[in-house]
Formats: sequence, structure tokens, C-alpha cells
Amino acid sequence: MALPREYTQQSCSVARALEVVGERWSLLIVRDAFFGVRRFSDFSAHLRIPRAVLAERLDFLVGEGVLERGTGTRPVYALTAKGLGLWPVVRTLAEWGDTHYGPRGPRRLFTHAGCGGAVDPVGSCSACGQGVPVGDTVMSPGPGFEAPGEGANAVSVALASPHRLLQPLR
Amino acid sequence: MALPREYTQQSCSVARALEVVGERWSLLIVRDAFFGVRRFSDFSAHLRIPRAVLAERLDFLVGEGVLERGTGTRPVYALTAKGLGLWPVVRTLAEWGDTHYGPRGPRRLFTHAGCGGAVDPVGSCSACGQGVPVGDTVMSPGPGFEAPGEGANAVSVALASPHRLLQPLR
Repeated sequence: MALPREYTQQSCSVARALEVVGERWSLLIVRDAFFGVRRFSDFSAHLRIPRAVLAERLDFLVGEGVLERGTGTRPVYALTAKGLGLWPVVRTLAEWGDTHYGPRGPRRLFTHAGCGGAVDPVGSCSACGQGVPVGDTVMSPGPGFEAPGEGANAVSVALASPHRLLQPLR
Repeated sequence: MALPREYTQQSCSVARALEVVGERWSLLIVRDAFFGVRRFSDFSAHLRIPRAVLAERLDFLVGEGVLERGTGTRPVYALTAKGLGLWPVVRTLAEWGDTHYGPRGPRRLFTHAGCGGAVDPVGSCSACGQGVPVGDTVMSPGPGFEAPGEGANAVSVALASPHRLLQPLR
């Protein structure tokens, strides 16, 4: 897939990264993939964006090697090793959002599956000091979490309970 | 300033953060502010975006408290404490961009002004182990850096030499 060189004058790694994940919705699709969303219909239900936009974004992220698409009649999407490398970006954005727009505290908490310690935005466990692989991270609702309302989609409902990252949501 | 609630269905700190800095060019403006760009004309020369777009983005970031605008006939822009909190986002994006789109290595290197050690994407010094405030970070061209060509703008030329972050570029 041809790259949209949107920031052609910018010889900069930040610009280069944003050419790949800076488009509207792309980082939220990546976030959902970390949360364990795999199916087109689940991304669609959770993100509530037009299916054509979602399809285009997924195709682009697959083309860039951020996601891989499984084969089958109902393909599933999963982060590649390259895509997994975006976790610090997602987490530092969440941290900043919580700090400045989360008056009741963090919406989500991240703990180390091994020892239960809190995981900082860049993946170190505050209890055991180890670097925590994203797949060993458990996400739980925090004090700022807003419980899904009546008739919420299945993804939002599933994410209201503690869940290990990357584990298929359902 | 009223917020564009672009991701209204998303009760998520990532979405909230992207409502503030996820718009096209916004994170590159923030990046430039970390690099020491302060004047409208310098942002304009370095980013090469239409002046109306730049003015709109700067106004929005000032309204959100990410930047502050100095008074005077030629106002300068500087990151607020809230804006400074975006450094880990900018750095983790750059790290990912360098890893996957920098075949010759990092475009920029970050070292601790105090001891000269390399600073990791989240601000720890590899030599002395300290957390390094962004203002104590020196940015230098790395092996992947592309030198500015003939007739390059003054910001690009200034950034081709080692430069302490946040220090006004000129």
C-alpha cells in the first residue's frame, strides 16, 4: 500500500509515526486491539464509526504491518510485533488524558499479572520493578471509570471487568 | 473554548487526549515547542502549513491550556506545565518512528545535560539513572538525521546543531 506522505517536509520520526497512526480513529483502533478486540463487528460496535471508515483504517494498518488479518470467513485482527511497540504511545496518551481530564481519577488501572503491582505508563511494575510485557498486564476499571449504560455494546460490557491485555475479548 | 467532542461515545482517556492533540499537525506544533520554537513565523516556516491552519491550531492549544501565548506585538508561544506533560507522548512516538522507519538509526539523540548519558524515551538517564527533566535534555542529530538542504528555513538549520530542549531556538 502506498503511503500517504502527509508531512512530506518533515524529516522527523514523530511525523513519520503520525503518518501511520495519526489519522482520525487509528490510535483508537490500535488501543482496542490492545484491549483484545479482534473482530470487525466488535471494533464497529465499540467505536461506532462508519463501516467504510473502519474498513479503510484496518486495511491501512494491515498494509503498514501494524495489524495482521487472520484468514477465514470472519477474519480477526491482531497486533503484530510492530503494532505492539505502540503500547507506550497509547499508555502515555492515556496517562496524560487521565491527569488533565479525569477529575475522579484514572479510568483504567493497569497491574502486573505476575505480582499484582501497578504498572506505570511505560511498563515497569511498581512492586517487583520488572518490565512488564503488555500481555502480562491486567486492565481494571479505575475510580474514573464510567460504567456502561443499559444496552451498551458487548465490548464495553466486557471491558467493565478486569481483563488481561491482548487476550481475545470474547 | 468549546471542545470538539469528536469521540463522544468513547469514555476513554486516550480518546480524551486525542480530542485535544489528535488533530492534524497539533502534535507536530507541540513537538516544535519542545524544540524551542516560539514565534508564529518560525512555526510557519518549519511546518509549512497554511497560516490560517496554524493560527487555528495555536488558538486551540492555548484555549486548552497546552500552550500559553505571551503578550506583545510579536507574541511567543510556550508550553504550559500541562503541555510539558506531553513529552513522553512525543518521545514514544519518535522512538516508534525511528525503530520502524529509520533504517539509518535515530534521527535525533537525547542526552542528559548534567552527565551526558543517553536519555530513554520516558526520560531516564542511562548513565546516572536519574529522571531527566525535559529542560535538562540536549537534542543532537543522530545517524539518521538528514541535514537541511540549501535554502532551508532557519529553524531547520538551528536544529541541525545540538540544542537544549525548551530553550528558545533563536
